[in-house]
Amino acid sequence: ITVSGVTGALIDKGNHRHFMQKEIFEQPVVVAQTLGAYLRPLEEQVALPALPFDLAEIRRISIVACGTSYYAGMVAKYWIEQLARVPVELDIASEFRYRAPVLEEGGMALFISQSGETADTLAALRHAAENGQKTAVVVNVASSSMAREADLVLPTHAGPEIGVASTKAFTCQLGVLAAFAANLARARGRLDAAEEKRIVNLLAEVPAAMNAALAHDAAIEEMAPVIAKARDVLYMGRGPDYPLALEGALKLKEISYIHAEGYAAGELKHGPIALIDENVPVIVMAPSGPLFEKTVSNMQEVQARGGQVVLISDPEGLRAAAEDCLATIEMPHVDAFIAPMVYAIPVQLLAYHVAVAKGTDVDQPRNLAKSVTVE
Amino acid sequence: ITVSGVTGALIDKGNHRHFMQKEIFEQPVVVAQTLGAYLRPLEEQVALPALPFDLAEIRRISIVACGTSYYAGMVAKYWIEQLARVPVELDIASEFRYRAPVLEEGGMALFISQSGETADTLAALRHAAENGQKTAVVVNVASSSMAREADLVLPTHAGPEIGVASTKAFTCQLGVLAAFAANLARARGRLDAAEEKRIVNLLAEVPAAMNAALAHDAAIEEMAPVIAKARDVLYMGRGPDYPLALEGALKLKEISYIHAEGYAAGELKHGPIALIDENVPVIVMAPSGPLFEKTVSNMQEVQARGGQVVLISDPEGLRAAAEDCLATIEMPHVDAFIAPMVYAIPVQLLAYHVAVAKGTDVDQPRNLAKSVTVE
Repeated sequence: ITVSGVTGALIDKGNHRHFMQKEIFEQPVVVAQTLGAYLRPLEEQVALPALPFDLAEIRRISIVACGTSYYAGMVAKYWIEQLARVPVELDIASEFRYRAPVLEEGGMALFISQSGETADTLAALRHAAENGQKTAVVVNVASSSMAREADLVLPTHAGPEIGVASTKAFTCQLGVLAAFAANLARARGRLDAAEEKRIVNLLAEVPAAMNAALAHDAAIEEMAPVIAKARDVLYMGRGPDYPLALEGALKLKEISYIHAEGYAAGELKHGPIALIDENVPVIVMAPSGPLFEKTVSNMQEVQARGGQVVLISDPEGLRAAAEDCLATIEMPHVDAFIAPMVYAIPVQLLAYHVAVAKGTDVDQPRNLAKSVTVE
Repeated sequence: ITVSGVTGALIDKGNHRHFMQKEIFEQPVVVAQTLGAYLRPLEEQVALPALPFDLAEIRRISIVACGTSYYAGMVAKYWIEQLARVPVELDIASEFRYRAPVLEEGGMALFISQSGETADTLAALRHAAENGQKTAVVVNVASSSMAREADLVLPTHAGPEIGVASTKAFTCQLGVLAAFAANLARARGRLDAAEEKRIVNLLAEVPAAMNAALAHDAAIEEMAPVIAKARDVLYMGRGPDYPLALEGALKLKEISYIHAEGYAAGELKHGPIALIDENVPVIVMAPSGPLFEKTVSNMQEVQARGGQVVLISDPEGLRAAAEDCLATIEMPHVDAFIAPMVYAIPVQLLAYHVAVAKGTDVDQPRNLAKSVTVE
């Protein structure tokens, strides 16, 4: 299949050692580019492309995807339910297809795929369309099968992604999904002008906040050898940062082959905390905000059992909770709504530098293909 | 809190070395006991206790739980959507509580907890009740806080569970949830007499099938030392056996401290397959039936990358796919509907024997409490 108009070999890595690194650093630009297609910053309004159906009539949404795109969908569930109050069902494409999901009238099914060719997701799209759902896709390749078949195409403008481990496609997906959530909320009369303005201004801040996050690259590189020695790593987060814990673990798995696993912070004590000893670093994503104290309390449960914590938070959060941590990664202070887009950066950089420290093949990890076009 | 009317020290382990082992072997009896409260085998009908609301009016269900109970809820989602065609939202209790879930009129919220005291789940129950949901609980302790506060109590009759890692409470929860799914389907006119008869007869077969599964204990004990050497283990399954993969991994984590992780079989190739080498055994749950070939195809992707597979299947499935496996565990041939209850046994036994081989404290694993009564 054609992943993009150009092949990897023809695309320049610029000053970067790997495509993945280049793609991580491109994010402020490509996310700005993507958001630009969905925001009218001067009018302080969100704006989707012309729609083939009325968003106000959507009563339920099924989000279906695989891998990293699935985690983007998981963040979107938090955003959509919070802003638009439309219930969202989230499903892994290979499960959705074979479990006879309940697809009701007034439902929209939203599919997320960088390539637009992922076999499981494409099969799920066809199943939803056959069962009377409006279909929408978030894809990075405008000429892809999914883009051709869906009622509504919401493109990301990430440019070709060459590294097998998705980075910039993920954050661009998040940008589209945040704008979609706000549009849906507006269409349903759930977003007044002041709140719309607030959301647009928050999203407009994301590229600069990503740049501020990228500025901590050297500090992350410096701590990478400590994580590179670990056999096992846990990630934890709450609310919309919980999917980021899953994505952080997936990134580390994919390129460093360390067995990393993500958990909802509140769930660790229901079993996985048994794994914790001084050899299992726990990466905690805890932006200051409404969930901060709850997450920190779960982090302290880990520390009380000898767990070594790497805390990712803003200066305020670090001041409050960094004391007994193995290490910290500083993020700019951002609103909880956009935190998932900004906190994607440190988990990508950490995975990248750990893989480099371990000497694995960052851009072409073993066993993996860029687009999975088989079921 | 009072977990049961008697304390662990007063309950006899009988001929068993550990409470967990005893509780695993009790399952045919306590599951029969639990099902007996929800089935009328002579009339070949399902039957719930008297209901405080009309099941036919339930339009959506939110299932909320933690840990092993959450995986029971995940199986229930497959069953309820398949039989009753009522959409089910599944949520981790610590997430449900803090994400402002969309709770619509006509919704029922179902909470699952062995102790009935789990703090996160209890907080979620109160939140749902305050937001106009009918509430139901599946609990093993009839005098618990959750039982007192819910509109509908669906007790399991597992008897006191002493081992910290839940076994018999889990399969009894599944028994209740299967009967509930069938009741809901009947109330909504989705279950004709013939299908109801078929479901009741299938459920009535479960205790005998569990006995047949337990008969393979010695074979599982024999292979345990191979798994005990592993640092990392993956579990995979599809459809209603996917939650069993998650539960199998949780059991192994909890008592042997091996980093085990469960995946939907179709999802492995979207990232985690990068972990696979000859040192990471992959436990595959694949009862013969509609999903068998898809699961085996994912298993072969693992084998093509050097992965060592332990295949759990029935004689028919083993004949078809055991050839290149490291080991196999034979299960009786059962209908796909009851497979999750039967396949719980081998993953529990495997975790148990691996922990014994490693010499860990099976009944009191490090860092864990039986009931988590803090958030």
